[in-house]
Amino acid sequence: MSEDTKKVAIIAGNGTLDKAYPPLIIASTAAAMGWEVAIFFTFYGLDIVNKKKNGKLQVPSVGNPAMPVPVPNIIGMLPGMTGMATGMMNSWMKKANVLSVPELLEICQEADVRLIACQMTLDVMGIKKENLIDGLEYAGAAAFLEFAQDADITLYM
Amino acid sequence: MSEDTKKVAIIAGNGTLDKAYPPLIIASTAAAMGWEVAIFFTFYGLDIVNKKKNGKLQVPSVGNPAMPVPVPNIIGMLPGMTGMATGMMNSWMKKANVLSVPELLEICQEADVRLIACQMTLDVMGIKKENLIDGLEYAGAAAFLEFAQDADITLYM
Amino acid sequence: MSEDTKKVAIIAGNGTLDKAYPPLIIASTAAAMGWEVAIFFTFYGLDIVNKKKNGKLQVPSVGNPAMPVPVPNIIGMLPGMTGMATGMMNSWMKKANVLSVPELLEICQEADVRLIACQMTLDVMGIKKENLIDGLEYAGAAAFLEFAQDADITLYM
Repeated sequence: MSEDTKKVAIIAGNGTLDKAYPPLIIASTAAAMGWEVAIFFTFYGLDIVNKKKNGKLQVPSVGNPAMPVPVPNIIGMLPGMTGMATGMMNSWMKKANVLSVPELLEICQEADVRLIACQMTLDVMGIKKENLIDGLEYAGAAAFLEFAQDADITLYM
Repeated sequence: MSEDTKKVAIIAGNGTLDKAYPPLIIASTAAAMGWEVAIFFTFYGLDIVNKKKNGKLQVPSVGNPAMPVPVPNIIGMLPGMTGMATGMMNSWMKKANVLSVPELLEICQEADVRLIACQMTLDVMGIKKENLIDGLEYAGAAAFLEFAQDADITLYM
Repeated sequence: MSEDTKKVAIIAGNGTLDKAYPPLIIASTAAAMGWEVAIFFTFYGLDIVNKKKNGKLQVPSVGNPAMPVPVPNIIGMLPGMTGMATGMMNSWMKKANVLSVPELLEICQEADVRLIACQMTLDVMGIKKENLIDGLEYAGAAAFLEFAQDADITLYM
């Protein structure tokens, strides 16, 4: 890439469905603009690249009074409500023709977005590489900082 | 603005009262210093500029063990506890002479902070423009990235 | 420091155990690389430098369907579940030889990371300085922005 190529460095640290979209949308949009992008998946964020989980990430139904159709906590606690909140978001996304999480990841990989899994999180949480999608790099915080030091935009999402 | 004007680009992605303050305080402070500022409101963050909601944003009473006066989840679940947590934060802010969310937005607009609503979120969640405050721009992630690429400070809050 | 020293500016705005680690790991890693680092502790993030609290920060057991061992909300509500989630994370960290929050803070201070407590939060929440660790600076958002304007990496975590 040329010296002038813009660079975006993202840390994805959350694993709920509503928190998985923002880094993937920013990354795929920046990549479509021809920019260089890396996402560092750490802590719960590793769920986004976990192929056993990333097709069924969930939206929390409690502890989030900003939910579009807010339900009292006492009702949000009932079995099934997390599923309902998740189903609602998935159906909105579909109606608006927004891609799913695995589809957005594919777009990112086709556009050469670097997807970096946090090695320390794997060690700490005992996550197996075989559960993660192909094409990931494995590295630590230092590698992320090396990339981010020249980035034009840095975001922890 | 001159070439040397500092620039701050913020994404506001959360809609609870405690998460609405940080972007507005950073934005209004930077604007008061003569800096150029844009806030991109996306996902739940759109509630901050929703005039039917932004005067009564809430603080979650569950799922947040860091709450200043933590309550066990089993009590935080009871009807009324979200209201109590919210009332507590509002009364603290008032005692410390911190402006309300709508007041901070007004300060931002008077100081020429650009307030950008995420068009995709409007489409996905079926939000009507008539429910949002006046003076917003409507754009997508690409427009945010265009602004942020030259920013000195970029934050997802 | 020389003109070329890289600079990282972090806002730590959350006070749960799982949200305390990311800023401290990024900060201590950057400092170990010889970079200049400042962390601005604000809102719930002040708990991280509260010596009565930072040795026993908690992981929420509800409202987080991304938890490694997710429990239904109705069970996460039961007394003791926040403690269980917290115990689990602490034991993982120990097994992987990750330092505790107070230990990471010490490392940061030895490496000259600037730790700045948000004065407005102290006022708003009525927090006493005597409860916070030694060696903190006290300042507002403007001071953070002054530091961050030249930073190579800015993150709200």
